[in-house]
Amino acid sequence: MSHEKFQECIEECMRCMMACNHCYNACLEDENVAMMIHCIRLDRQCADICSFAAHAMSTNSVYAREICMICADVREECGNECKQHDVQHCQVCAEACRTMAA
Amino acid sequence: MSHEKFQECIEECMRCMMACNHCYNACLEDENVAMMIHCIRLDRQCADICSFAAHAMSTNSVYAREICMICADVREECGNECKQHDVQHCQVCAEACRTMAA
Amino acid sequence: MSHEKFQECIEECMRCMMACNHCYNACLEDENVAMMIHCIRLDRQCADICSFAAHAMSTNSVYAREICMICADVREECGNECKQHDVQHCQVCAEACRTMAA
Amino acid sequence: MSHEKFQECIEECMRCMMACNHCYNACLEDENVAMMIHCIRLDRQCADICSFAAHAMSTNSVYAREICMICADVREECGNECKQHDVQHCQVCAEACRTMAA
Repeated sequence: MSHEKFQECIEECMRCMMACNHCYNACLEDENVAMMIHCIRLDRQCADICSFAAHAMSTNSVYAREICMICADVREECGNECKQHDVQHCQVCAEACRTMAA
Repeated sequence: MSHEKFQECIEECMRCMMACNHCYNACLEDENVAMMIHCIRLDRQCADICSFAAHAMSTNSVYAREICMICADVREECGNECKQHDVQHCQVCAEACRTMAA
Repeated sequence: MSHEKFQECIEECMRCMMACNHCYNACLEDENVAMMIHCIRLDRQCADICSFAAHAMSTNSVYAREICMICADVREECGNECKQHDVQHCQVCAEACRTMAA
Repeated sequence: MSHEKFQECIEECMRCMMACNHCYNACLEDENVAMMIHCIRLDRQCADICSFAAHAMSTNSVYAREICMICADVREECGNECKQHDVQHCQVCAEACRTMAA
């Protein structure tokens, strides 16, 4: 039951985690890394809550729904930050953060 | 800043994680394991949110406070379950779940 | 780079995590739960290392390769255990543990 | 059993996780953040493997020992990097990475 009910949402979280961690790595290699600090911070935080949300859903935990709600807020915050940076990895990450299966 | 402000609470979460995982392992070895199913489930869930709360606090994440609030609810639920089982590991776990630094 | 190089393997780990956690939940509901203890233990351990392997790969961590090697061993051990249980969720999990992208 | 056998080592991992995440946050606020990129990367990676090692030990997982060995290597690598930076948070982190209970 659990993993079927949540499967689409879990996969969505994993895609967002991958996009955030890719953006995180790319931001750290940016020539103007000082401009990317807030993005780097949010990328890590967003990737980590996405990963924990996937875990919470796949274990059918009592807190799965609440974690997903926090996750949605952080994705919005991370997506808004990424949207402001005119480089491909940030735009891709902003798009991944905006896409919601839940 | 971050890890000092939250340090006591982080250590508290780690102690609870250890108690829950110890109780989880002991419940799985119990002769009447069928009686311990709900305890096993909550032990894992509580240990995992404690670990994630420690992570969120030590990274000074935007969601640290919200995760701690969920964590407090789960600890209460897990502690109430454990309290009902008259074996030492459950009583120890119930006590760890009740102790709150935050 | 990182998330492209490892993308297939990450998705594979996430599928295995979902199968293991589904099997974990189903085993805890089994009428003969006492027969499923070893499976329950390995399901959780396998799910958790799969999740951490996905994290390690998507962050392009120095230890990604070593974690994947441990993950492969645990999947084999978990799959061998699941194979012995003639219920659908265990057979599905055994299959997921056997499929390797890496 | 499990959490007693490993308790000192678990607490040690948690202290190192806290020091690494504190150093990570401080490096991101450094005026010369471009000089701290490698340190930032390793701080996150080291914090995350320390946290997973604590999890693996407290669940008495089959892979606890192997994870601890990887953790020791990453701590050495992270400590060597931090040692080169003449700021307090890096020196504190280097010291935390060097201290081994295991």
